[in-house]
Amino acid sequence: MKGIKIAVLGAGGIGRACLDVAAKKKELKVVAICDSSGYLYSAKGICVKDLKRFRPSKDPIEDIIKLKDKYDGIFVALPNLPNEFIPGVVKRFIKADYSGVFTCALKRTSAMKLMMKLSPDLRRNQNVYIAGCGATPGLLSAAAVLAAQSFTKIEDVSIWWGVGISNWDAYRSTIREDIAHLPGYTVDRAKKMTDKEVEQLLSKRDGKLVLHDMEHADDILLKKAGVVDLLSKVSVGGVMDTRHAKKPVSTTMTLTGITFEGKRSSHKFILGDETSMAANVIGPALGYMKRAIWLKKHKIYGMFGSTEFMPMVVR
Amino acid sequence: MKGIKIAVLGAGGIGRACLDVAAKKKELKVVAICDSSGYLYSAKGICVKDLKRFRPSKDPIEDIIKLKDKYDGIFVALPNLPNEFIPGVVKRFIKADYSGVFTCALKRTSAMKLMMKLSPDLRRNQNVYIAGCGATPGLLSAAAVLAAQSFTKIEDVSIWWGVGISNWDAYRSTIREDIAHLPGYTVDRAKKMTDKEVEQLLSKRDGKLVLHDMEHADDILLKKAGVVDLLSKVSVGGVMDTRHAKKPVSTTMTLTGITFEGKRSSHKFILGDETSMAANVIGPALGYMKRAIWLKKHKIYGMFGSTEFMPMVVR
Repeated sequence: MKGIKIAVLGAGGIGRACLDVAAKKKELKVVAICDSSGYLYSAKGICVKDLKRFRPSKDPIEDIIKLKDKYDGIFVALPNLPNEFIPGVVKRFIKADYSGVFTCALKRTSAMKLMMKLSPDLRRNQNVYIAGCGATPGLLSAAAVLAAQSFTKIEDVSIWWGVGISNWDAYRSTIREDIAHLPGYTVDRAKKMTDKEVEQLLSKRDGKLVLHDMEHADDILLKKAGVVDLLSKVSVGGVMDTRHAKKPVSTTMTLTGITFEGKRSSHKFILGDETSMAANVIGPALGYMKRAIWLKKHKIYGMFGSTEFMPMVVR
Repeated sequence: MKGIKIAVLGAGGIGRACLDVAAKKKELKVVAICDSSGYLYSAKGICVKDLKRFRPSKDPIEDIIKLKDKYDGIFVALPNLPNEFIPGVVKRFIKADYSGVFTCALKRTSAMKLMMKLSPDLRRNQNVYIAGCGATPGLLSAAAVLAAQSFTKIEDVSIWWGVGISNWDAYRSTIREDIAHLPGYTVDRAKKMTDKEVEQLLSKRDGKLVLHDMEHADDILLKKAGVVDLLSKVSVGGVMDTRHAKKPVSTTMTLTGITFEGKRSSHKFILGDETSMAANVIGPALGYMKRAIWLKKHKIYGMFGSTEFMPMVVR
């Protein structure tokens, strides 16, 4: 497993932080990265300060595709919206006969449904794609699969997250994606908001976004793994504070079920308040990347959810 | 995955409860079970009341081995002590050319080391063995692998369990295994204790056993998965109350690490107090059984730890 080389699609908050995480890993390096304006390739590995040397491009995805023999896996850290965007990018890699592995931190259920349709095409090129590998879905939905083991009937899975960022500017896409979950807002409306409009909305709410019943793919991934029979048994919500790095609430996955003796109980997985969204998204995404490479090595191809496998530890 | 047939070795507290759990599952049934006095086989599936019809035997393991074509997997729920006992039983199945899957709830590090040596022999017969598939190691050590994802350095993993049983009589082996962890006690000394001696020891301690720095295979399994570099970074302890079904403390796995940003934090996995030891041991053991069958189907053979794979959900 030495010398895993990866390409990162997206150079926003998550993409950039991924360079920092990779810098701490012996087993893995980022050799290519792009955003909507350009791309960068370096066989030696890329760190954040290298981003100054971005090469402008009209079609940066095409440039990354051309480098397809230079990396083993792709971490898709692109904006989630519109829902067709990430599946569309993946289709381009498939069409170009890329054969490797993918992980992503895809969040929306409707985007996940589009992704899952790509499974036959991914298999044809001997690709492995593990979807929903961030914090939620990802770390927390995988924890729900573990928690489910103690029960013979699962009643519900409730994910309640807290994220604190001191400066929303570094997470422009993420914040717009969160706004789209607010009552009265749509994906389109949120995407079209100017920075000033976002700023005004945040000011009215003391910098906080409180989100209930978010459309999050934890539901479909937990159904795929057999934890729940109905999507409605999974609920995701949380509080995003855009003015303080401190989390407004502790991120918690609570699974409630009935044991074989008929007892109702809840297992909880609680993330430490000092862990950032970036740490809880990128760590799992890279752990699942190593698992995806393991699956490909064992000739197991196709589209999987983060609920189906244990991420591996990337040293 | 329909119609998984399993044999259960051991008809103590865990073995019996396994019959009750299996009775709630559509995908799985127990077709054979044995203890030191006899065995039972039924293609239709066995429930607890069938245990009255145990067929006496001088070598019940041999009787189960003879039935080897009748089941897909074996759940080893035998006493952990002496350390050589479970590895010795597994060797007999290997010698008899059994080709299938195994899970166990093996607890001691030294027993796990013996088990791991069997990997080449298991592979030769295309067997899959997932070891340490109970609560700890098992559910909690797998949760530690998930928790580790958020950190670039792991400082320690601490497992602190609470078990409450209203009647220690149903868990004679388990209680003796716990006594062996007390300061001044050895495995041999605990095993030789009469029921009366156990009763006296428990009376002196108000029915409670408080155990620190237990020799538990969570350490070796977390090292195998790459979560820790040193066994000493994993500690296991807990409180066993033999007089009340209510747990004396909440079973909790706490993993502390440093994030890529240099922040120290702890993720926690907390089991609901109403879940019994049996629920938290048997559920995971069967989930890992389904995973072991998946591995065998994909021609991935050998000895693995519960920290290396996600258990599957058994419907």
